[in-house]
Amino acid sequence: MPRRTLKLGAVLLGVGGPGQHNTWLHPEIPGDASVDVHWYIARARAAEAAGFDLVFIVDSQFITENSPHHYLSRLEPLTLLSAIAVHTSRIGLVGTLTTSYNEPFNVARRLYSLDHISGGRAGWNVVTSGDAGTAGNYSRDEHYDYPTRYGRALEHVQVVRGLWDSYEDGAFPRDKETGVFFDPDRQHALNHKGEYFSVAGPLNLERSPQGQPVIFQAGDSEEGRDLGAAVGEVIFTHAASLEQAKAFRTELRERAAAKGRDPEGLLTLPGIQVVIADTDEEARAKEDARLGTKSFDRALRELGRPFGWHDFTRYDLDAPFPDVRADAQRSFRTQAEAITKLARDNGFTLRQVVEHLNASARSPFVGSPETVAGTIEHWFEEGALDGVNITVNAPSEFALFTDRVLPILRERGVVRREYESTTLRGNLGLPVPENRYTAARRAAEPAALAP
Amino acid sequence: MPRRTLKLGAVLLGVGGPGQHNTWLHPEIPGDASVDVHWYIARARAAEAAGFDLVFIVDSQFITENSPHHYLSRLEPLTLLSAIAVHTSRIGLVGTLTTSYNEPFNVARRLYSLDHISGGRAGWNVVTSGDAGTAGNYSRDEHYDYPTRYGRALEHVQVVRGLWDSYEDGAFPRDKETGVFFDPDRQHALNHKGEYFSVAGPLNLERSPQGQPVIFQAGDSEEGRDLGAAVGEVIFTHAASLEQAKAFRTELRERAAAKGRDPEGLLTLPGIQVVIADTDEEARAKEDARLGTKSFDRALRELGRPFGWHDFTRYDLDAPFPDVRADAQRSFRTQAEAITKLARDNGFTLRQVVEHLNASARSPFVGSPETVAGTIEHWFEEGALDGVNITVNAPSEFALFTDRVLPILRERGVVRREYESTTLRGNLGLPVPENRYTAARRAAEPAALAP
Repeated sequence: MPRRTLKLGAVLLGVGGPGQHNTWLHPEIPGDASVDVHWYIARARAAEAAGFDLVFIVDSQFITENSPHHYLSRLEPLTLLSAIAVHTSRIGLVGTLTTSYNEPFNVARRLYSLDHISGGRAGWNVVTSGDAGTAGNYSRDEHYDYPTRYGRALEHVQVVRGLWDSYEDGAFPRDKETGVFFDPDRQHALNHKGEYFSVAGPLNLERSPQGQPVIFQAGDSEEGRDLGAAVGEVIFTHAASLEQAKAFRTELRERAAAKGRDPEGLLTLPGIQVVIADTDEEARAKEDARLGTKSFDRALRELGRPFGWHDFTRYDLDAPFPDVRADAQRSFRTQAEAITKLARDNGFTLRQVVEHLNASARSPFVGSPETVAGTIEHWFEEGALDGVNITVNAPSEFALFTDRVLPILRERGVVRREYESTTLRGNLGLPVPENRYTAARRAAEPAALAP
Repeated sequence: MPRRTLKLGAVLLGVGGPGQHNTWLHPEIPGDASVDVHWYIARARAAEAAGFDLVFIVDSQFITENSPHHYLSRLEPLTLLSAIAVHTSRIGLVGTLTTSYNEPFNVARRLYSLDHISGGRAGWNVVTSGDAGTAGNYSRDEHYDYPTRYGRALEHVQVVRGLWDSYEDGAFPRDKETGVFFDPDRQHALNHKGEYFSVAGPLNLERSPQGQPVIFQAGDSEEGRDLGAAVGEVIFTHAASLEQAKAFRTELRERAAAKGRDPEGLLTLPGIQVVIADTDEEARAKEDARLGTKSFDRALRELGRPFGWHDFTRYDLDAPFPDVRADAQRSFRTQAEAITKLARDNGFTLRQVVEHLNASARSPFVGSPETVAGTIEHWFEEGALDGVNITVNAPSEFALFTDRVLPILRERGVVRREYESTTLRGNLGLPVPENRYTAARRAAEPAALAP
């Protein structure tokens, strides 16, 4: 068995870490980076040059004036990734698509098309849309409730995976001598009839290089974790502390095992904000300076998002934190509950909650290259993560990681030295699911198909 | 007013002209061209080098064993065009997306994303899906009937166009000095509530280089023509004869004028199969040879498509043509009716219909370079077309057109010598629709906004 190695992802223009609310102000990042395909291509190529496994594109379909800057106007993930695909050759391309407002046939086709275009580097970050307002852009009076959102998501992924198995290898002989283009015996209609979807199939796109593009998932709610354990192959999460990360990864692996899956087929990649300088002290000063730039007013407005964009500006800042969890029932419920619990447990006022959240945006991955490398290695060896998703976009800051931290991790054998495969699945070391019909054929005629 | 010039489109792997049923057998075309992004990029670059206005990608979401070869397995249009976009710089990129099985918000966003990625070269071929079986891939018991299909299509396009006006120019100052990223006064929610769709908006993507990507349309039914006259800017059609083409273009222009539109904003581009050789005689022989390659059996099966994939193999070939128009009510009704009328008017048997259709697949654009150039010029000057959509994929055949026919047309001033714009809209000479809110602002404060 090959040695387990740390996986590397780069989140392009995600928002979440300290100082990221005003990424657009960074002198090295063009103000219109989120609509500039050439900026994305350059970042993906830099990540590929450093041997990263994947780039990841976040997404949403609902905005308000208070949305994070780059969310107000940004390229659609699949069109963007397709453009990146033809200017890169090894790095994985992971796009976010919601199961709540896309048809499974269209999702299956677009991701499979990307898998063909990229030579086997497509990944799907499955989301259910947390902004309740999204419903208004899709002819619905209100967003789906949690059980429906996640019930649809699970069935949606199952349908997409079923459509991806529409063709076995060899379904298209395309033999110009004999004139045989197609072998109908290797084409299979899905004929799915479920609770939320009825999809006949087959897909109109043959088996792709990966066969099954890689499934990514990030939900943190009970329903979200259950979905991740059921169908996720890579779980995006956050990493506030070693203990929390370890507990999360352990729980996910146990849930997957309880569902009969091999936990090795489930990788956990927290998004981490690395802050690197020559010395630990300089790095801490750098983080302090960055945290100090966020305005209280903006933080107060952004606090509304998990609560269904609840308007917190209308409350007395020095009164106890208001209970507005009801507004979060069709939004980011788990996040809203965690914030409310934090306020209750500590008796925080609204002002204190905002200040605490700003301060607690501190990253555990701050320090000299040796310190950051050591922390990552420690978390990896302790079983707190299988890889990291770097949320740094400024080229010089990203280069501090690739040029100064990665060499240390490679020296120690934590990170592989070169790409080991041409596919994302191959580089992540994930098993290649056999086509279900080929598997059935093999079971029925073991001799005929023995390797 | 600049001289009217002939527009040029290249249909990549469309099916329709003589001999195209077995394009895949052509020695110059890879058998798997329809899933090979590099093949498409090479063809688009060849068309761009020849100064073509656009490449066009056809699409469908339902297949049967008898579907045209390249339809069985092909890349999804928008992911494909995005990949082509970043390997070309001037040619327009027109993709087919159905209004029947896509949400307007998603369509608006994907096309706008392509317009940003390509620097203003996106076009949308609006279709309603003619294959009734498509419904089964989208959780519907049956396809929409004609009035609903086209009612939805019109409203869908209106919503998409409304979403494209979500932002005026200047909505994103992104001034790093002042810290102003966004000007909410230049963002507008659509708040559409219609018969088929309710879409609040705004879109999460700023005004694109074209402002409004170009709308293409091809329906030939009464409802289809009405949609084209209402919202189409370029109409794809076929061209069996000069008279028919002229009557079609005249009718479309009259319909558009009756709707209060300037007919100059509506271009008609028939798809044409050019067959070129040194002499007219050699060209005719070349076409004969190509027509002769189609098997009767395959033609009989493909005849089923407009009739909702009706199975014609079960009839006596020498009995009168059966009346199966009922099966076409939710499919390609107009095409099915035309075939039935042909059979009735001529008293044709089923066998005669198939033979007649195969023989009538002859192109009017067959001959020496001088003959073909002359025919195109004549049709253009007679008002039968505003441009042609070349349906030839073999590089050597395409080169006969670009290297031998186009120079003649350029010499005569029928085709422009160089790209005149960086956008598709600019190259097609179509007016640039002003943002509706900017227009309203201008009307309200004429002095402030005067140029």
